[in-house]
Amino acid sequence: MAKSQLKNFSKLSDWFTDIILKAELADYAPVKGCMVIRPYGYALWEGIQNFLDKLIKDHGVKNAYFPIFIPMHYLQKEKEHVEGFSPQLAVVTIGGGEELTEKLAVRPTSETVMYDMYKKWTSSWRDLPILINQWCNVVRWEKRTYLFLRTSEFLWQEGHCAHLTHEESLETTLWALNAYEKTYNQLLGMYGIKGKKSQSEKFPGAKDSYTFECLMPNGKALQAATSHDLGQNFSHSFDWTVQDQNKNKIYPWQNSWGLSTRAIGGLIMAHGDDNGLKLPPAIAPIQLIIVPIPGYEKSLIKAKEIYQQLKKTYRVEIDNREGETAGFKFNKWELKGVPLRLEIGDRDLDNNSVILTRRDNNQKITVTFDNLESEIKNQLKDIQIKLFDAHKKFTQKHTYTANTYDEFKKIMSENRGFISSFWCENPDCEAQIKADTKATTRCLPLNSKEEKGRCVHCGQPAKYRWLFALSY
Amino acid sequence: MAKSQLKNFSKLSDWFTDIILKAELADYAPVKGCMVIRPYGYALWEGIQNFLDKLIKDHGVKNAYFPIFIPMHYLQKEKEHVEGFSPQLAVVTIGGGEELTEKLAVRPTSETVMYDMYKKWTSSWRDLPILINQWCNVVRWEKRTYLFLRTSEFLWQEGHCAHLTHEESLETTLWALNAYEKTYNQLLGMYGIKGKKSQSEKFPGAKDSYTFECLMPNGKALQAATSHDLGQNFSHSFDWTVQDQNKNKIYPWQNSWGLSTRAIGGLIMAHGDDNGLKLPPAIAPIQLIIVPIPGYEKSLIKAKEIYQQLKKTYRVEIDNREGETAGFKFNKWELKGVPLRLEIGDRDLDNNSVILTRRDNNQKITVTFDNLESEIKNQLKDIQIKLFDAHKKFTQKHTYTANTYDEFKKIMSENRGFISSFWCENPDCEAQIKADTKATTRCLPLNSKEEKGRCVHCGQPAKYRWLFALSY
Repeated sequence: MAKSQLKNFSKLSDWFTDIILKAELADYAPVKGCMVIRPYGYALWEGIQNFLDKLIKDHGVKNAYFPIFIPMHYLQKEKEHVEGFSPQLAVVTIGGGEELTEKLAVRPTSETVMYDMYKKWTSSWRDLPILINQWCNVVRWEKRTYLFLRTSEFLWQEGHCAHLTHEESLETTLWALNAYEKTYNQLLGMYGIKGKKSQSEKFPGAKDSYTFECLMPNGKALQAATSHDLGQNFSHSFDWTVQDQNKNKIYPWQNSWGLSTRAIGGLIMAHGDDNGLKLPPAIAPIQLIIVPIPGYEKSLIKAKEIYQQLKKTYRVEIDNREGETAGFKFNKWELKGVPLRLEIGDRDLDNNSVILTRRDNNQKITVTFDNLESEIKNQLKDIQIKLFDAHKKFTQKHTYTANTYDEFKKIMSENRGFISSFWCENPDCEAQIKADTKATTRCLPLNSKEEKGRCVHCGQPAKYRWLFALSY
Repeated sequence: MAKSQLKNFSKLSDWFTDIILKAELADYAPVKGCMVIRPYGYALWEGIQNFLDKLIKDHGVKNAYFPIFIPMHYLQKEKEHVEGFSPQLAVVTIGGGEELTEKLAVRPTSETVMYDMYKKWTSSWRDLPILINQWCNVVRWEKRTYLFLRTSEFLWQEGHCAHLTHEESLETTLWALNAYEKTYNQLLGMYGIKGKKSQSEKFPGAKDSYTFECLMPNGKALQAATSHDLGQNFSHSFDWTVQDQNKNKIYPWQNSWGLSTRAIGGLIMAHGDDNGLKLPPAIAPIQLIIVPIPGYEKSLIKAKEIYQQLKKTYRVEIDNREGETAGFKFNKWELKGVPLRLEIGDRDLDNNSVILTRRDNNQKITVTFDNLESEIKNQLKDIQIKLFDAHKKFTQKHTYTANTYDEFKKIMSENRGFISSFWCENPDCEAQIKADTKATTRCLPLNSKEEKGRCVHCGQPAKYRWLFALSY
């Protein structure tokens, strides 16, 4: 049943790269593993930044900036952390023409360099909480580039907070997870599942990791954003204490959370089709493209008038480039995923109307000038809802329950998607399932109810149904 | 006459560092030469970004992102460029655990990596102009850190445009310079001089460099932003041509322009005094601080009411932290340069009024509740104007004309400031003046009129009066 839905995307990877290059979202950089984010792609990142930064600031978190270089001995302070990131480091060994006495890692993430400063800045409970975020670039070495999804350098935000109690820290951890869900749902029109990572899949150095997982059209799961409850692991490693109200030494409780340019990769895949991108209006850099039919002077004048009127309210552009046919232009803006196209020719003008075409379902709507603004408003609103609904429906349709390992393996070999199965939480079982089927534990969905079950792999008692999938 | 104005700043450097640390604008990072920009300092950068980014976008320039790593052979493509930046490079030699076959520079600026992509993206005049900007971090190795003014890593924007003609490119170069002037004048309340750099002071690889120079209280000039007419130097180096309308091969004309976190250093120095920062309202992260006099319950309630009312329009905060006296709080917010302080005690409440105190001139104004909003609006507006006027007046007062070399040397040894003198434009003279007095050519002010003069140093014929100063 599901297979048919996925067939257009059997070569999703080729389609994905092709669309990114053709729509001028990004390009391969001359440096192996790196990419160039072109203006149209960067506008998507700016849209994400604007939306998420507002949520972050409304919560009282402030932006700051910490250095890109991390002395190697800092990374080594947290054991799991350095083991997790060592294989992916880019290392500066020469500075200002001289060999450095201590090598510097280009930050793969900033826990260590930030927490050392936090220690310096605090002495009492009055100095907590610390609520800091930074928007920056990070580097994790990759041999093969996969535009937006796997690149040696990527852009992200990393929030790093410290609290007096675990309760408060966990509250911030889950607030961040909810902010990510809101960004995906309301801005990017994407549905996903919030949950907790297994111990083997958690962030190196965390107590617990939380994740927002989205299903892609090829049945693979995308880890779309994560939020980590770091417990007191790092404050212990840095021997960072503050005095509480009763003059006791307290190791602060910490959390970190991040969302990266990878989100753009998810956005492209979640909604696109064979004709190109489909951008939800809330994130679309151009919400409406006006195409005056070439060769008609009167309609060009009217088109410019409409443009001047609409640009006060919408992100709108007019395509009156010479030397291109209307059909060529329609295809170009379709490829770029602009939600609404407004075409206007002399005949339309005589009828006092224009034609709106929706990118999501190809519907054509004839609208009179009087109703234009309200119709555009309604259509954009409707497209936003419909794209989210479609992605939610797709995800639900491709979420399976497997009660036996045979069922589990059959789904993985045929339909793919999220598989909900009891798991005993033994990492050996998790590893064997991965070896047999390539599926990994994606998360234990939040608010899962405890049940009396049996592990889908080993048959031992299991309390919860976990979500499994092949992942990016 | 000028000496007295400068005396409080005879130890400007100590004052500067002290204020930055105490006001929590920035801190020294564990990596030599690097700094941490703390939330209060980063909010200044966000203010600059918001203001300048709008000017950039209004001009049709779009943001993008290019990789942080530049293969060494790229930098070598432009001879002057590589010579200029080589001594300051941070070099990555290890990636993903392996020695790299080609070493990578951490970008000191992005001309080379960007223009290689521009070449790939264009083939005809239809593809020009390219109008791209990026906000990012860059690294130029420094041994000694001077917070905000000289750090191994700093944040900036770098605009890189390419045009079909030199005329258009120069137009963009000067538009950018004007955008910088507007940012300094209107946002940062700083006056400065626009001009052209001498050939020895220009950007490595440029045809001509333009600069905006601001005078600091110690009589030193700060190069506050630069805009470079690159001519066809880089397009020739990259062998980048496009076909023009007549099918001729054209080497595109290019420009690049940047403003960095150094601007924050200028802002601190230009307005501060012995009690700390003085922030112009347009850039101040907190425009008004409300301090309810501790111990009065009624006025705390009223203060919170005022806060709720004012925060709709202004960046306002309320300081009701316990365990601190009113005097301590007044000093704290004075140090942080908040333009207006609103204090309210029970006695004020009885009089239906509050006291506003201006940071710039210490003036206290009693205001009734009815007039509060309009009074705040007027006062903030007036502070913004007064700070700019004061900096302009200071600059003009410390701009001298020297007709003889003795006069020149006397000014440099006594008052310091901008010195306007005829110069023959011979680099040897320029070097000798620097060796004798430490003064360098800052710029040839735009719209300087040609005159018949004699070089202040060698006495040879000279056409223009250049601006000299000791510089950062």
